[in-house]
Amino acid sequence: MDSPIQTYLQALHDEIAGIRDGTPDSSIPGIAGVDPDRFGICLATADGYVYEVGDTREDFTIQSISKPLTYGLALADLGAEAVDGKIDVEPSGDAFNELSLAEGTGRPANAMINAGAIAAASLVKGRGGSSRFERILKTYSDFAGRELDYSARVYESERRSGFRNYAMGYLLRQFNILEQDPVPVLEDYFRQCSVLVTCRDLAMVAATLANAGANPVSGKQVLELDVVERVLSVMATCGMYDDAGSWLSSVGMPAKSGVGGGIIAVLPGQVGVGIYAPPLDGHGTSVRGAAACRRLSRDLGLHFVHAARTGRSAIHASYDITAAPSGIRRNDEGAEVLRSHGHRARIIELNGDLLFAGTESVIREVSAQSPDVELVILDLRRVDETGRVAAKLLPRLRDALADAGCGLLLIDPGGVLAGALGSSEDGGDGCAPAFGTRRAAVEDAENQLIARYGSELCLPETVAVPDSPALGSLDPAVAKALAERMEPREYDDGDVIRRAGQRFGGIYFISSGKVASSLPAPGGGRIRISTLSAGMTFGELALASDDRQETTVKAVGPVQVSVLTAEAMAEIEAGDPRLAVELWKTLTRDAYVRVDQYLRETAIRDDGR
Amino acid sequence: MDSPIQTYLQALHDEIAGIRDGTPDSSIPGIAGVDPDRFGICLATADGYVYEVGDTREDFTIQSISKPLTYGLALADLGAEAVDGKIDVEPSGDAFNELSLAEGTGRPANAMINAGAIAAASLVKGRGGSSRFERILKTYSDFAGRELDYSARVYESERRSGFRNYAMGYLLRQFNILEQDPVPVLEDYFRQCSVLVTCRDLAMVAATLANAGANPVSGKQVLELDVVERVLSVMATCGMYDDAGSWLSSVGMPAKSGVGGGIIAVLPGQVGVGIYAPPLDGHGTSVRGAAACRRLSRDLGLHFVHAARTGRSAIHASYDITAAPSGIRRNDEGAEVLRSHGHRARIIELNGDLLFAGTESVIREVSAQSPDVELVILDLRRVDETGRVAAKLLPRLRDALADAGCGLLLIDPGGVLAGALGSSEDGGDGCAPAFGTRRAAVEDAENQLIARYGSELCLPETVAVPDSPALGSLDPAVAKALAERMEPREYDDGDVIRRAGQRFGGIYFISSGKVASSLPAPGGGRIRISTLSAGMTFGELALASDDRQETTVKAVGPVQVSVLTAEAMAEIEAGDPRLAVELWKTLTRDAYVRVDQYLRETAIRDDGR
Repeated sequence: MDSPIQTYLQALHDEIAGIRDGTPDSSIPGIAGVDPDRFGICLATADGYVYEVGDTREDFTIQSISKPLTYGLALADLGAEAVDGKIDVEPSGDAFNELSLAEGTGRPANAMINAGAIAAASLVKGRGGSSRFERILKTYSDFAGRELDYSARVYESERRSGFRNYAMGYLLRQFNILEQDPVPVLEDYFRQCSVLVTCRDLAMVAATLANAGANPVSGKQVLELDVVERVLSVMATCGMYDDAGSWLSSVGMPAKSGVGGGIIAVLPGQVGVGIYAPPLDGHGTSVRGAAACRRLSRDLGLHFVHAARTGRSAIHASYDITAAPSGIRRNDEGAEVLRSHGHRARIIELNGDLLFAGTESVIREVSAQSPDVELVILDLRRVDETGRVAAKLLPRLRDALADAGCGLLLIDPGGVLAGALGSSEDGGDGCAPAFGTRRAAVEDAENQLIARYGSELCLPETVAVPDSPALGSLDPAVAKALAERMEPREYDDGDVIRRAGQRFGGIYFISSGKVASSLPAPGGGRIRISTLSAGMTFGELALASDDRQETTVKAVGPVQVSVLTAEAMAEIEAGDPRLAVELWKTLTRDAYVRVDQYLRETAIRDDGR
Repeated sequence: MDSPIQTYLQALHDEIAGIRDGTPDSSIPGIAGVDPDRFGICLATADGYVYEVGDTREDFTIQSISKPLTYGLALADLGAEAVDGKIDVEPSGDAFNELSLAEGTGRPANAMINAGAIAAASLVKGRGGSSRFERILKTYSDFAGRELDYSARVYESERRSGFRNYAMGYLLRQFNILEQDPVPVLEDYFRQCSVLVTCRDLAMVAATLANAGANPVSGKQVLELDVVERVLSVMATCGMYDDAGSWLSSVGMPAKSGVGGGIIAVLPGQVGVGIYAPPLDGHGTSVRGAAACRRLSRDLGLHFVHAARTGRSAIHASYDITAAPSGIRRNDEGAEVLRSHGHRARIIELNGDLLFAGTESVIREVSAQSPDVELVILDLRRVDETGRVAAKLLPRLRDALADAGCGLLLIDPGGVLAGALGSSEDGGDGCAPAFGTRRAAVEDAENQLIARYGSELCLPETVAVPDSPALGSLDPAVAKALAERMEPREYDDGDVIRRAGQRFGGIYFISSGKVASSLPAPGGGRIRISTLSAGMTFGELALASDDRQETTVKAVGPVQVSVLTAEAMAEIEAGDPRLAVELWKTLTRDAYVRVDQYLRETAIRDDGR
């Protein structure tokens, strides 16, 4: 099916193509004579998906849209302080070709007007065998994600007719803002303005800025986030020259236009817009481009205020571990400890982004826990982005929890906070263990509670078959009679005890040691289903699936089991049906205990929020 | 435990309190002589939680922080076009007290400089028995969430000494920007500047702007979102006068300062900042206030570019319904249809915000579904915010799906998209049904697939006991023998068949009709556990819990059941142990089928992403 976004863009393009106002630039002889009907709209998302309509693959010159890119390169080379010494970051309220040099110092008001852009170009130096312009062109190419070149014809034309820019260059030299011969700087500036791009390239440039400076297709980090912050800030206040305030009010995206007919607009974190339509208004901005930006912003909610209504809370759910136990089978003593003390371990599921609002809500939730809570499990599996506030404050949260006698566990298979929380910010050794699954984290928390509040009976090393919970509802004599029909077996670490596909082979009672059962994962690899220890049983699930074993069960360390084989069960049924009734009845009860647990957990997950 | 955010703010306050630069305003006699050591920092989140440190409850005059609020009121009264006719939205690059009137028209550059603010005050008219100033004061009070008043002393002082403002008022009158006697307008302007606020009030004002115009504590919508967009845009480009560009680069939040020593800064969607510290710099901005804003922005990632790195995808998980079936028991025919055709119905779980990026990723995912897919279930339970792009494009997505022969179902207990998707945008009758739980939506999708691909055998009205899936593994003669021991019963709609707390009463086989089982919800109300229909069983789960019924089971419409009572089961065990073995064995298998389903579903949820 057609994407409704594509359909929407097509309709928008058709509608705005009807706007006939404005005329293409005639000030630069090399670009005069372009077809005024050319019109392309391209959206590139911050993860690199592209929507395009119209003339999106046709070359034109980048012109002033080069300014923020070269400014970014200068900032990356020299740092903000050195660049600020040469170029201010204040809106001038003037048109693009005004001088707007500060009295006394001659410092250009900002890098989006020509004077500031020429100064920015002068700050970029040749490096590593590459000339200044080669470095500039390489940066633009990294932004666009393909190798760009410049138009020698347009360059020659600008070089021969850009008298006002020559005047600016010499004025900047006079004030020592340019510390070198202005002519080579101006030549590189004319070259950068003559770089050929397509509408699609512009969208990728904008998407790279939206994506915190990394080209979302190539993955290359073209500029660091702090440089992008400054570039987009200056675009917001100065990018549209004397129309900047009106632009930010109505479009709400940092933007830059060029007299070649291009516009970029950036919604940080979400999308980059590139538009191409040569006829310009009195500000030197593409008429259809500006109209399209206004409509896109309104229709798609791209204004930075509208788009920033991020979810206020990162708390998806919060509950104690009795509501979602590990599923590990416990003996009666262990189960009783968890019933009485399970409320001391709480799981907090996080969601979305850990930027300020999300991190604050996590801290608020954790800080408000009852003093009874001794273990907090943060489930980070649904966290998308983490900002510097999370890295700064969550280690303090962990330390404050530790001071309050409370442990912190993470469910963090993606390692999103392992760096921040794995070791103490202040060099201490407090460290939050991270688990790959909820089950594993909860099992650990349960074991901690059992160790803290239970006797040594709770986590026994060895369980005799008649004491197994699965036989718990049986008369002891009956349990003993069944135990006598079983066959003892031993396995070493890593041995496969049951393999998926085998026929039902009986019921395995673990006397000592641990086993792990797993299934193939849909995307490759294996999913661990459960870890079972002394007193627990396995093998019985094959009864559910036409007597075929579906999981693979492996020994974890040395294991001793007693097996009530399928043959022994058949013999009991034939020879001692009353014992068989007791056996099946206790297995039924045991199975329903697990069904019951499933239903409760599902009900909480589906509705308990 | 102490919140690490509170601890952080305390440390920041201690550190910045050491900055001794600047001097309190001396231009307004009524506010001279304030204690320069006063210093408060307050953060109010967009959901109304307040952190405060230092002198946050002390009154001072709001001064220029009143400007965006009165401008917002004027926009709300007259609309943007009328206000723009009197006041432009462009940065002037000048200080707060510059005239900055446009040549010819006399239009002030923006509403953040005094000239524009006086013009904005003049646009607010008395209404509904309230004077202009009463309306202004009421608006400020709604922003702060408490009743504010003004300082008569400071007002008198400004009224007697504000000569430059009088001059501006008369100049504005000369250009007909003010269309009335300037003196009453100026008096109201002096009154608005003299409104007494605390640092905490300022944070609430900022939080109201951050929260799309609604006071997060009172819930009152003080300004509409489109007005807030414009107010924050003008604050971003003009709020800090001739320091606006540098402020946006380094702090990255729309802000406004006042010579009373206050500052507000707004991170849309997340947080409002209020600061109070009287000593001012050369721009008329609080020195410690500006320093605190820079540090807060850097430490907590509050720059709008940093803070906008929202999650790129709203897709939390996507899988077909066979991976998470409804749990409704099906007969063999129905189960076979779902095995063969279940891939035709897909669940897409959404997450976070449906602003541009989130909505786009949903559309992309849905548009990329295989042509086999006939039903798409959007799970909206984790969606936080929806923007206008969702309301605009999702109905088109639904229509495009319908054109491609694909149905759309919603899991939307909160009704977040019911308005947008419940009825067709274009007046058509295509309508996406919304369900309260995943289980209910999946059951509906399963029923649609069974109706489409199964025979009439799949969803039978009536099932004889021997044909029940629970007895499916038994020899027909054995099943018939068991059926003969059962007791037929009938119930009417709403009858309670089993009540929580009753002893195990046997196993109920549904011959026709439906029953619903439920548990009390932790937060009150009831959670529906399952709906069961002809061929299914209930009552057996009591065996899991010391023979006590835990759920309540009610008839949904007229129901016929056959009950194998507890007494009948005991009789079979005593008199016909071989039949009892068969009975318990089949119940065990049936229970393990359900355990198996549970383990698979849990494994997908825990790891399959």
